[in-house]
Amino acid sequence: MSYFKVDSIKFEGPQSKNPLAFKHYNKEEVIAGKKMKDHLRFAMSYWHTLTANGSDPFGVGTYVRPWDGLEGMELAKERAKAGFELMQVLGMDYYCFHDIDVAPEGETLQDTFDNLDEMVDCLEKLQKETGIKLLWATSNMFSHPRFVHGAATSCNADVFAYCAAKVKKMLEVAKRLGAENYVFWGGREGYETLLNTDMGLELDNLARFFKMAVDYAKEIGFTGQFLIEPKPKEPTKHQYDFDAATVLAFLRKYDLDKYFKMNIEANHATLAGHTFHHELNTCRINDALGSIDANQGDMLLGWDTDQFPTNVYDSTLAMYEVLKNGGIAPGGLNFDSKLRRGSFELDDLLYGYIAGMDNFAKGLRAAAKLVEDKALDEYVEKRYRSYSEGIGKDIVDGKVGFAELSEYALGHDQIVNESGHQELLETILNDYIYNS
Amino acid sequence: MSYFKVDSIKFEGPQSKNPLAFKHYNKEEVIAGKKMKDHLRFAMSYWHTLTANGSDPFGVGTYVRPWDGLEGMELAKERAKAGFELMQVLGMDYYCFHDIDVAPEGETLQDTFDNLDEMVDCLEKLQKETGIKLLWATSNMFSHPRFVHGAATSCNADVFAYCAAKVKKMLEVAKRLGAENYVFWGGREGYETLLNTDMGLELDNLARFFKMAVDYAKEIGFTGQFLIEPKPKEPTKHQYDFDAATVLAFLRKYDLDKYFKMNIEANHATLAGHTFHHELNTCRINDALGSIDANQGDMLLGWDTDQFPTNVYDSTLAMYEVLKNGGIAPGGLNFDSKLRRGSFELDDLLYGYIAGMDNFAKGLRAAAKLVEDKALDEYVEKRYRSYSEGIGKDIVDGKVGFAELSEYALGHDQIVNESGHQELLETILNDYIYNS
Amino acid sequence: MSYFKVDSIKFEGPQSKNPLAFKHYNKEEVIAGKKMKDHLRFAMSYWHTLTANGSDPFGVGTYVRPWDGLEGMELAKERAKAGFELMQVLGMDYYCFHDIDVAPEGETLQDTFDNLDEMVDCLEKLQKETGIKLLWATSNMFSHPRFVHGAATSCNADVFAYCAAKVKKMLEVAKRLGAENYVFWGGREGYETLLNTDMGLELDNLARFFKMAVDYAKEIGFTGQFLIEPKPKEPTKHQYDFDAATVLAFLRKYDLDKYFKMNIEANHATLAGHTFHHELNTCRINDALGSIDANQGDMLLGWDTDQFPTNVYDSTLAMYEVLKNGGIAPGGLNFDSKLRRGSFELDDLLYGYIAGMDNFAKGLRAAAKLVEDKALDEYVEKRYRSYSEGIGKDIVDGKVGFAELSEYALGHDQIVNESGHQELLETILNDYIYNS
Amino acid sequence: MSYFKVDSIKFEGPQSKNPLAFKHYNKEEVIAGKKMKDHLRFAMSYWHTLTANGSDPFGVGTYVRPWDGLEGMELAKERAKAGFELMQVLGMDYYCFHDIDVAPEGETLQDTFDNLDEMVDCLEKLQKETGIKLLWATSNMFSHPRFVHGAATSCNADVFAYCAAKVKKMLEVAKRLGAENYVFWGGREGYETLLNTDMGLELDNLARFFKMAVDYAKEIGFTGQFLIEPKPKEPTKHQYDFDAATVLAFLRKYDLDKYFKMNIEANHATLAGHTFHHELNTCRINDALGSIDANQGDMLLGWDTDQFPTNVYDSTLAMYEVLKNGGIAPGGLNFDSKLRRGSFELDDLLYGYIAGMDNFAKGLRAAAKLVEDKALDEYVEKRYRSYSEGIGKDIVDGKVGFAELSEYALGHDQIVNESGHQELLETILNDYIYNS
Repeated sequence: MSYFKVDSIKFEGPQSKNPLAFKHYNKEEVIAGKKMKDHLRFAMSYWHTLTANGSDPFGVGTYVRPWDGLEGMELAKERAKAGFELMQVLGMDYYCFHDIDVAPEGETLQDTFDNLDEMVDCLEKLQKETGIKLLWATSNMFSHPRFVHGAATSCNADVFAYCAAKVKKMLEVAKRLGAENYVFWGGREGYETLLNTDMGLELDNLARFFKMAVDYAKEIGFTGQFLIEPKPKEPTKHQYDFDAATVLAFLRKYDLDKYFKMNIEANHATLAGHTFHHELNTCRINDALGSIDANQGDMLLGWDTDQFPTNVYDSTLAMYEVLKNGGIAPGGLNFDSKLRRGSFELDDLLYGYIAGMDNFAKGLRAAAKLVEDKALDEYVEKRYRSYSEGIGKDIVDGKVGFAELSEYALGHDQIVNESGHQELLETILNDYIYNS
Repeated sequence: MSYFKVDSIKFEGPQSKNPLAFKHYNKEEVIAGKKMKDHLRFAMSYWHTLTANGSDPFGVGTYVRPWDGLEGMELAKERAKAGFELMQVLGMDYYCFHDIDVAPEGETLQDTFDNLDEMVDCLEKLQKETGIKLLWATSNMFSHPRFVHGAATSCNADVFAYCAAKVKKMLEVAKRLGAENYVFWGGREGYETLLNTDMGLELDNLARFFKMAVDYAKEIGFTGQFLIEPKPKEPTKHQYDFDAATVLAFLRKYDLDKYFKMNIEANHATLAGHTFHHELNTCRINDALGSIDANQGDMLLGWDTDQFPTNVYDSTLAMYEVLKNGGIAPGGLNFDSKLRRGSFELDDLLYGYIAGMDNFAKGLRAAAKLVEDKALDEYVEKRYRSYSEGIGKDIVDGKVGFAELSEYALGHDQIVNESGHQELLETILNDYIYNS
Repeated sequence: MSYFKVDSIKFEGPQSKNPLAFKHYNKEEVIAGKKMKDHLRFAMSYWHTLTANGSDPFGVGTYVRPWDGLEGMELAKERAKAGFELMQVLGMDYYCFHDIDVAPEGETLQDTFDNLDEMVDCLEKLQKETGIKLLWATSNMFSHPRFVHGAATSCNADVFAYCAAKVKKMLEVAKRLGAENYVFWGGREGYETLLNTDMGLELDNLARFFKMAVDYAKEIGFTGQFLIEPKPKEPTKHQYDFDAATVLAFLRKYDLDKYFKMNIEANHATLAGHTFHHELNTCRINDALGSIDANQGDMLLGWDTDQFPTNVYDSTLAMYEVLKNGGIAPGGLNFDSKLRRGSFELDDLLYGYIAGMDNFAKGLRAAAKLVEDKALDEYVEKRYRSYSEGIGKDIVDGKVGFAELSEYALGHDQIVNESGHQELLETILNDYIYNS
Repeated sequence: MSYFKVDSIKFEGPQSKNPLAFKHYNKEEVIAGKKMKDHLRFAMSYWHTLTANGSDPFGVGTYVRPWDGLEGMELAKERAKAGFELMQVLGMDYYCFHDIDVAPEGETLQDTFDNLDEMVDCLEKLQKETGIKLLWATSNMFSHPRFVHGAATSCNADVFAYCAAKVKKMLEVAKRLGAENYVFWGGREGYETLLNTDMGLELDNLARFFKMAVDYAKEIGFTGQFLIEPKPKEPTKHQYDFDAATVLAFLRKYDLDKYFKMNIEANHATLAGHTFHHELNTCRINDALGSIDANQGDMLLGWDTDQFPTNVYDSTLAMYEVLKNGGIAPGGLNFDSKLRRGSFELDDLLYGYIAGMDNFAKGLRAAAKLVEDKALDEYVEKRYRSYSEGIGKDIVDGKVGFAELSEYALGHDQIVNESGHQELLETILNDYIYNS
């Protein structure tokens, strides 16, 4: 099989006009003390790449794929092979999947598990042959009608049990395939209307479910990192994992914070009213930055477009946070990105992935230089210097209270501030992007 | 003085055509076991009512007020009298204020405090004369240029100290005037750009500040409830108290959750991408519903319009949550509502307050009937009944884990759900509104 | 066949607790000089009611329908019968459909037309048997992959031709079935990215297409009203028929304005940043209000939820505009409304339609009383009285220019305005809703 | 006087670390056949630069300026001098102002005009001394309370007359100072609530006003281009000049389209739900691109932040449209940009303008290369090639109607489309930005 008519995508540098070459991503090149591939840990999303078809709420699928026409397990295996070929062509080391991405559901849950087992054999073999690894696994608990009122937060206890079975199975799969993380995205964990919803019970149940997952992972010795992926809405009117802060509130309430980090998606951040940068920063300062879903939305559209990320501001600031975080491992950058419905040819997969990988490579280059030069850090350190001495240090050290501070303030009430120089900092950011 | 040319606003019932009469708010009428005034605990917002002038970012003030032309302490005292007259005319029992609403700032902090002391004497006298009480007090830490980079989260430690002095003073005032709550709204606690911001340090400092406030309240014996008022943005690009969940995450991180509840504002909820109902429900199930800022925004505008609340769906669902919460006391319903810039005549204050008070009274009537009839509760209880028996009860009781549930699911995998009947419930809500 | 287990939905009045009864819609009752049914001209949307299945971008269909399992023409015929039964049960006099709602597409265009012809026979028969009429017909030019880059605005001329054939056919069908209107909704007429788009050529082609439609209608003697339905986005990133004003600009540019009016949808209005009321008013004052798609969106969600309309403010103000317009005929109120994915039982169709119909009936009652009492008109007329006399009349009559007005202004520069009393007017609106 | 402690801002090229130097803007350098300054025609906005103070709805002014403390005409003159010094330092050739930016309002309209006349003398002198020119003039008809209900669309005819006097005066000023354009921005031309508004009359009056302006310009021989600046909302709930398409609809209705073009602002575009690129393209293909207000908003905020533009994607695509338009003259690029409230030091003005000018220079460089290489054009031409031959050409030439096309389609119904390659085009755009 050779679906992709290129030998491999090579680094040809910024001036190359070859659309099937990397201009910024040079896998083995060392930047900031590590190989680019170890900073970026790119992963292929199985669903958008292999099973999606370009449909949208007003139209059926458009993608033209060589495996169109196949069905069932035959289709599943051909997709797996195509995916591993694509990763090899791109020089990509990781992939991610939901259970039903890789194997079709059966009539019964047991059939579904049997199909999955057969495909896991296949994936295990492909992993061994190629050296490609599983960044994270997850279970789809949103597509089937049984999840219409939620998964672990369903009003129907049978659904909760069904989900338990699915996640149990996928934790076993994750262990077997060496997944470095396990992700929960709760697309149906939320409500359509509060008029029929007991939000308190639903959240308690969600916590119960996560605790069971933690217990079972311990039981079977799965040591991958658990991740929650926030998203505020879509498909559900309100989703409980609204954003990073909301997830932190939940984890802290139920004493789950030591077991979970977050998988931050760019497009989910913006749907929640935040920048991608904000969500990454929020996770970092709360020791909760686990992994990244690399894509981008359209800021004028109110739904998840999951576009391949090509905006260099986002990739630069994201990699800046990753560097500040001391890296993203054991997480990575999963391209939860789908081709636009109009980009339906097979080669668009190459264009899309190259676009995304190169954009993050460019972002890494700029971010590494920003960090190396302390281009922002110096400014920031100076800006907060008043907390390193005098009354500021006393505040930080907990030596003063309102009484002392009030006395101090009465004697220091003609306050002089300094400019925040936002426009200058934005120009500096531009300079680093152009010159990296 | 008699600015308002009505003796008092009376209850005349639904059919009344008198725009200066209540059609739904009958203060002493008993609904659901309590007088309407004790359910609703309406408060006048000093700032929007007495000091605001109708300016907006593109235009200067428009409001025509009898006290135009006065200045300094004379102005401050006239406003206080007018405010108490207005509350008496409306039969309103509470008010709320920021320090600089009631007294002008001086050249020095000491002057500012002296002005405030003088006005507190005046307010104390008016409270005694009228029986009107202080629902909550707060300190304005956002208007003056000194707060340009934040208050307790400023990069400048002198600003932190200045804020400590202000809050210390206002806690003393709150105690003296018998305030039932003390509110923090952090309009400048956030960032304009992450490029120049150390979010971790700023949030640590914010927690330090709140701890000092708690300590000082204990020290002086102020026993009012502390409240944080979430708002996601405006004036700042990102505000740390984004929404209820974000505040909960913060409070839990710094072990402050037992000292703080929340003051939920309708328009802040919608700016954060939530319904008012959602924010109230979120607080309620986390035992954090403290008080309400009653107003409404325009869902098509991206800023805080703080309009007088006239939407009956919002008021009904808000009062539904309040009833479920066992009431809102010691909080209340503060009209953080301002007249539209085009409603600049003095009488518009009467129209605005009557609009808002009557709308919440109508909402209370509908909500009380919904609760009494269990019109929604019955449906909700039935919907979640699977958690009261069998496998669902085992889940809730913590008797089962993934292994047991998986076994159960394999035998119960042909799941049958029931409709959520959203459209029917929305019709029921309409019926209760029209018939209450 | 008897899918709906009720004889018919009767008017039982506001106090009725029967969820399968009208509380406000009394079909034959005369309001403002006409029967309610003639004001409201309700129509069933074939697609949401009969062919939709509750799928969304993250999940497959959920609706449970008696015709599940049937296929092809057999399915098509069963749906038609069910639809007419539903309309009879509800006492609904009109319906609307796209070509492929009623008949499956064939392998070839000719097959598709043949299927359609067979179903038109069937529909014609059902119309005769029941007296139910066709409010409007349209052609689906968005679901099939051939429309991926647009329909009449496709970059591929073969697609333009294909669309011409489809609309030609449907105009013939519309004539045969006595459709009172013909609608164009351009869900793919727009662009995904300007980088690959020649917007000028695409809009010229769209105008060419509409001119051909007008010509062909004349040729075959179809005298129904042509309607364009604005929508700003979704599925396409930008749609050319963004809102009413944009459509007016387009129609005027290409001299098409005398042939087209608009079909205004509530949820499309809000996605464009407007209220439903605004779009209706804009059409009315431009003599372009043709018909209404009655539904509602969720103001916190950025996509078309097409919910059954239950908000009484929207229905009251919509019917206010309809009354001011002298009625909506030959248009009507088409429920372009779908059941929520969680409302998947057959009876939810009854709940949904009753919810929507009753809500518009309630709105009509309130609006008729507002008009009758001139409750708003008197205020508005007084507000603009300065244009009925003196310098204002001279302005309106075109008797003065800048020179005269400048002279006048220099002598009248101490301007006194009057309050706009928005809060009072909102209370009046509430009163009319509660008391109608 | 020498407020700005630099001799002048020089071009030092991309690698320069000097924040007070241009890295991309080299005024006299020839790009695409013209000097950069003639492509870009940068203008200083008088209001944001000289009279603004950094206030926002929740806080007073923060800017620290050397002219703080001055008042009345003395202040006005000092600002004028400072503005011209700034433009000279920056090498900027144009400026723009509203009447009341340059001269304080008096007690009477006549006083206001007298103040204005005195300042126009001053500005005329400064123009002569420096060679700096007036890009456009306008009249502020939104700040004063008299405009609370609108200007030319006020419900009060006296306000209409007052506006006529103001615009008459400013047209005379524009002629005298050689303004190349005259702008109308209708910040109060709209409504707060439709409940009290006669939108039909208001729009008729707006048209009457514009006709009078056209007539008066002819009368006095002012030959500058009239421009309307669309903005959808803020300060008003709905503004009539919502976006470019809405303005076109209005102009065409009242036969004003030959007299007006548009002044497109980036931040206004995004508030209307469009990209800046979209609005520019819409104007270009309708021969209505007049001038540009260069700034940027924050896509997560719902109000006009008017930030200095630093996003290179926007500047590149904007200049791409300008080049396609054959240039922007007699319009230009007015920086309707204000320093962030936290950027309050005088030098921030330099940083801000350099940021904006350099960003547009970078955008011009990338755009010119895109045009020169036909990097997008070739792709677009190929994409639409079907309209240059065969049935497509017949469509464009008006040779076929539905009958012919239907026949054609029946024989060509197995349609093959080609990918739109969006991801590839986005990568190409990135490459041009990095390599220009």
